[in-house]
Amino acid sequence: MGLTFYDILEYIGTFAFAVSGIRAASIKRFDWFGAYVVGFVTATGGGTIRDLLLGITPFWMSDISYLIWTGIAFMAVIFFDKHFFRVKYTFFLFDTIGLGLFVVVGFEKSLLFGFPYWVAIIMGTLTGAAGGVIRDLLTNEIPLIFKKEIYAIACITGGVVYMVCDSLMVETLLTQILAFSSVIIARILAVRFNICLPVLKEPKDDGQLKLF
Amino acid sequence: MGLTFYDILEYIGTFAFAVSGIRAASIKRFDWFGAYVVGFVTATGGGTIRDLLLGITPFWMSDISYLIWTGIAFMAVIFFDKHFFRVKYTFFLFDTIGLGLFVVVGFEKSLLFGFPYWVAIIMGTLTGAAGGVIRDLLTNEIPLIFKKEIYAIACITGGVVYMVCDSLMVETLLTQILAFSSVIIARILAVRFNICLPVLKEPKDDGQLKLF
Amino acid sequence: MGLTFYDILEYIGTFAFAVSGIRAASIKRFDWFGAYVVGFVTATGGGTIRDLLLGITPFWMSDISYLIWTGIAFMAVIFFDKHFFRVKYTFFLFDTIGLGLFVVVGFEKSLLFGFPYWVAIIMGTLTGAAGGVIRDLLTNEIPLIFKKEIYAIACITGGVVYMVCDSLMVETLLTQILAFSSVIIARILAVRFNICLPVLKEPKDDGQLKLF
Repeated sequence: MGLTFYDILEYIGTFAFAVSGIRAASIKRFDWFGAYVVGFVTATGGGTIRDLLLGITPFWMSDISYLIWTGIAFMAVIFFDKHFFRVKYTFFLFDTIGLGLFVVVGFEKSLLFGFPYWVAIIMGTLTGAAGGVIRDLLTNEIPLIFKKEIYAIACITGGVVYMVCDSLMVETLLTQILAFSSVIIARILAVRFNICLPVLKEPKDDGQLKLF
Repeated sequence: MGLTFYDILEYIGTFAFAVSGIRAASIKRFDWFGAYVVGFVTATGGGTIRDLLLGITPFWMSDISYLIWTGIAFMAVIFFDKHFFRVKYTFFLFDTIGLGLFVVVGFEKSLLFGFPYWVAIIMGTLTGAAGGVIRDLLTNEIPLIFKKEIYAIACITGGVVYMVCDSLMVETLLTQILAFSSVIIARILAVRFNICLPVLKEPKDDGQLKLF
Repeated sequence: MGLTFYDILEYIGTFAFAVSGIRAASIKRFDWFGAYVVGFVTATGGGTIRDLLLGITPFWMSDISYLIWTGIAFMAVIFFDKHFFRVKYTFFLFDTIGLGLFVVVGFEKSLLFGFPYWVAIIMGTLTGAAGGVIRDLLTNEIPLIFKKEIYAIACITGGVVYMVCDSLMVETLLTQILAFSSVIIARILAVRFNICLPVLKEPKDDGQLKLF
């Protein structure tokens, strides 16, 4: 059970995602149990939905590390919150690294189980972004990702890059690195230049439907 | 890959359901990505839950059409919203056709996988109605279906009609047409005569539980 | 299809959980259909999520009893609500018995399908507690369990007791009784002595992230 570089990136992502869930829960005055659970589902919820859709056992059910890393994130929020989030850029970096990796993992897992590219792009995006949607549902917020986060676009970008490289027979490791990097770069550019997607015009209320 | 009349009805339903999700999202000021996603899960969420419960791969993962029809619905809302929804009855008709078809599809799929009638009725209803529940959860609304929509009753009616016809050995095509029509008629009657289900009396608040 | 003592406990639990869902729905003015559905998912939602994660067909799809007991709970709320909930301790007892049983059932089912103890503890807790979370999401409330209920801790206690007994090769029936009782005792003690988990300090708002 040697620890690969890949594992380390995945644990960094889990840690960062769990911290975001735990902090969202504490804003809503959840107790310790609630905060831990919200942290865990923020970190693992996207991958769990992906695995249910692919028809396989959710990844965290065969590796206790994800529970442990959520516990470490929990301790970090309790003991180091003040200092920890001074280093806001560090946290953003962790979160973005995790996102990039989650997208690559989700994409590859889908191909492995025989699904086409377009399903893999969706699964990569789900892996990266759905945990945050569940976090927002559990804390009774409108999902942030639908309003101002550019998370999802970065995930889709990574999936498309993977698809293009894979179609062009680029070597696997290079493909992974390019997809991973493109998620990170897309996210950094979006935050840096404050890129948002447009909002739909509010439809006019057309009143109660009356038939005949 | 010839396009059957059946397919056409299913795409009409997908389009109508997606429009309802996209419009709900734009009322809440979701961005384009959020609106597209809410449209897609409104159209496919019911069938996805059904397929997960039945233990099979969600239907939309083997046919990209549902993504495309959601995209067409998205364009329609952006470009034609004003004109489009003048023809409110057309939209109601589309939505109701989709509902009728989704119920029949969900019912038949459950029988196909060996489940009894009562499971099929539930699955037909889920296929027709659960997408709207997810739409309301994502836009942070109390699910409409639980308060004033008569969607669910129309779905159950269709399932019961299918069950009765099937028990009586009515020919399959006729059974399908009868079930499909009964959903549509139930819905039109309910809207026309403003039929609602009664509301439960609010229970008295019985304070904090104290033991001993 | 003889009715075992085990079945009777499970139906008591289903009834009690369904009542809690139906009452929550009627507070929010849901109609009869909505109240019934919320009652049903409160009673069966935890076990359904467990079964989906374990990769098996949800338990209620092969036994119509759960639908029927939800119907009985519905009748009880309509006709006997005033009298019924005078006997608040009776209701608390039912609810707690159901919780204890659900935890044991969820734990055992996970072991049966070859998962390790720590997964079984999570599944026992999900079986007992997730239905209430879905109830709160559908009625647009922040899940109670994350703020002041001690439900989850009681569930975890029961799972840990089962694990310890099982590891020590305690006889199965005795193990079941001890785990079941420990859930009930943990819950009664928590309510009696008003035991709560601490709440995390609210993190300071650290403003908008600006890069570079």
